[in-house]
Amino acid sequence: MRGLAPNSAIHLTNLDIYMPNRTVFFVSDGTGITAETFGGAILAQFEANLHRVRLPFVDTVDKAHQTVRQINQAGAHDNKRPIVFTTLANDEVLKVISDGCNGMLLDMFSTFVHPLEKELGIKSNHRIGRFSDSSKSKQYQSRIDAINFSLDHDDGQSHRDLASSDVILVGVSRSGKTPTSLYLAMQYGLKASNYPLIPEDFERQDLPPALKPHQKKLFGLTIQPERLSEIRNERRPNSKYASLENCRHEVQQAEAMMRRSGIRWLSTTTKSIEEISATILQELRPEQLAF
Amino acid sequence: MRGLAPNSAIHLTNLDIYMPNRTVFFVSDGTGITAETFGGAILAQFEANLHRVRLPFVDTVDKAHQTVRQINQAGAHDNKRPIVFTTLANDEVLKVISDGCNGMLLDMFSTFVHPLEKELGIKSNHRIGRFSDSSKSKQYQSRIDAINFSLDHDDGQSHRDLASSDVILVGVSRSGKTPTSLYLAMQYGLKASNYPLIPEDFERQDLPPALKPHQKKLFGLTIQPERLSEIRNERRPNSKYASLENCRHEVQQAEAMMRRSGIRWLSTTTKSIEEISATILQELRPEQLAF
Repeated sequence: MRGLAPNSAIHLTNLDIYMPNRTVFFVSDGTGITAETFGGAILAQFEANLHRVRLPFVDTVDKAHQTVRQINQAGAHDNKRPIVFTTLANDEVLKVISDGCNGMLLDMFSTFVHPLEKELGIKSNHRIGRFSDSSKSKQYQSRIDAINFSLDHDDGQSHRDLASSDVILVGVSRSGKTPTSLYLAMQYGLKASNYPLIPEDFERQDLPPALKPHQKKLFGLTIQPERLSEIRNERRPNSKYASLENCRHEVQQAEAMMRRSGIRWLSTTTKSIEEISATILQELRPEQLAF
Repeated sequence: MRGLAPNSAIHLTNLDIYMPNRTVFFVSDGTGITAETFGGAILAQFEANLHRVRLPFVDTVDKAHQTVRQINQAGAHDNKRPIVFTTLANDEVLKVISDGCNGMLLDMFSTFVHPLEKELGIKSNHRIGRFSDSSKSKQYQSRIDAINFSLDHDDGQSHRDLASSDVILVGVSRSGKTPTSLYLAMQYGLKASNYPLIPEDFERQDLPPALKPHQKKLFGLTIQPERLSEIRNERRPNSKYASLENCRHEVQQAEAMMRRSGIRWLSTTTKSIEEISATILQELRPEQLAF
């Protein structure tokens, strides 16, 4: 490329600014999920196209030395020092990395844990990983139970214990109910069931009878007909089900029903499942905001 | 209690140290998931029983003032200053909170974003929320597709496109395949299917024929028979299916089959789905560690 156009060097310099050829490491002595969530949120603040590498389970001095080698190799290759997000509870492991690596180290634990030790007046336990031992905890078990519950109650499969749901999502087919209910279960441990609104419900012009006793737990999801038609066309191309006309009709009927029945609802068209779930939690179960 | 035993005052002092009566806030202008993950991981370093409160979508100055009032009320009630984890991209909102609240403020963004601006040589975009706009991104869409794929291929429901799976989990019923495959899809965007090993497979003493072409994608989950029996008893109490004897037999047969077929496997007994998933990713698809 360099030899092809007279201004390619300038062009490359611009690219260097906006898309640095740089590696970011997420180093953890546990799963790395916290390091990735934490580092990912910070990097989302930058329009930078970075090469990301997860290094989970770095829990021995040996693995720490290996990690240092990998970081320094990337730095030499990129000719830019790597950015290294770490969540390391083990001081020995952290020391090997902070002493040996040529990267920019952003350590979440030493930055925040030490001030908190002072504030709380207790020492930190240097426990590895937020998720260790969690498999035995009651809170963890209730998350797993919630996931199983949500799977058993996907798409109105079982009306039997709608009463034991924490929340019941309603909406037309493919409006986002299933991934949202699974996310509510996984992230917040909510027993989320979902109930599709189908053409028969619209003819009846009334909430499905199975839902009536649970009005307070209902939350509606709607979606732009154009987007719905796109999504349905992936599943059943060129079907009546996926046609824009039918999608328009279903969405309009569903929204009218939710309005009439006083069900809270939101549009999922431009929202991620994380945003939909956080909104539902806030609207429907304010007491769940304390946990 | 105080009057009941002569040493109760000492006892209460100990309790004060280990279980401070203190409130922790997770304040975000987005979903709050990053603040909670980040704060939760740091708090996991302390044996402290804290009252946790989520405050998502604090995205206006008005809501910031409301947040300040809520934090200060909690501080007055607890008679201890609250701990406030924030992920706020909006400087105005952050300023209202840092000026007004009596809590200990741990702001992830100002702590790490500013040094990174210097390092990368670019300004941060102060984008609210890691998940905003993500619903339109290709990466997000592939996560949703992966969730749908995993649901369609739960419990060997469809053998049709096992070939398009990124990973196929095998193991006896209730060994943890379903929540793990959903987590792999949700967190990492992997198309994870799962395939139960049933008594007929053990009689055949060989891998199910449907799995044979996909050996490289297989990952086995096993579990202690005692724990398996507990889990199955919750579903079908006092059944042969749930009996310890049957669980012992199935687990032994499944492990023998996995060993014989050279399938990598791990025991889920004391592991969380996060740990199981991170291990599978690392073992099976090392190239997915760069993303």
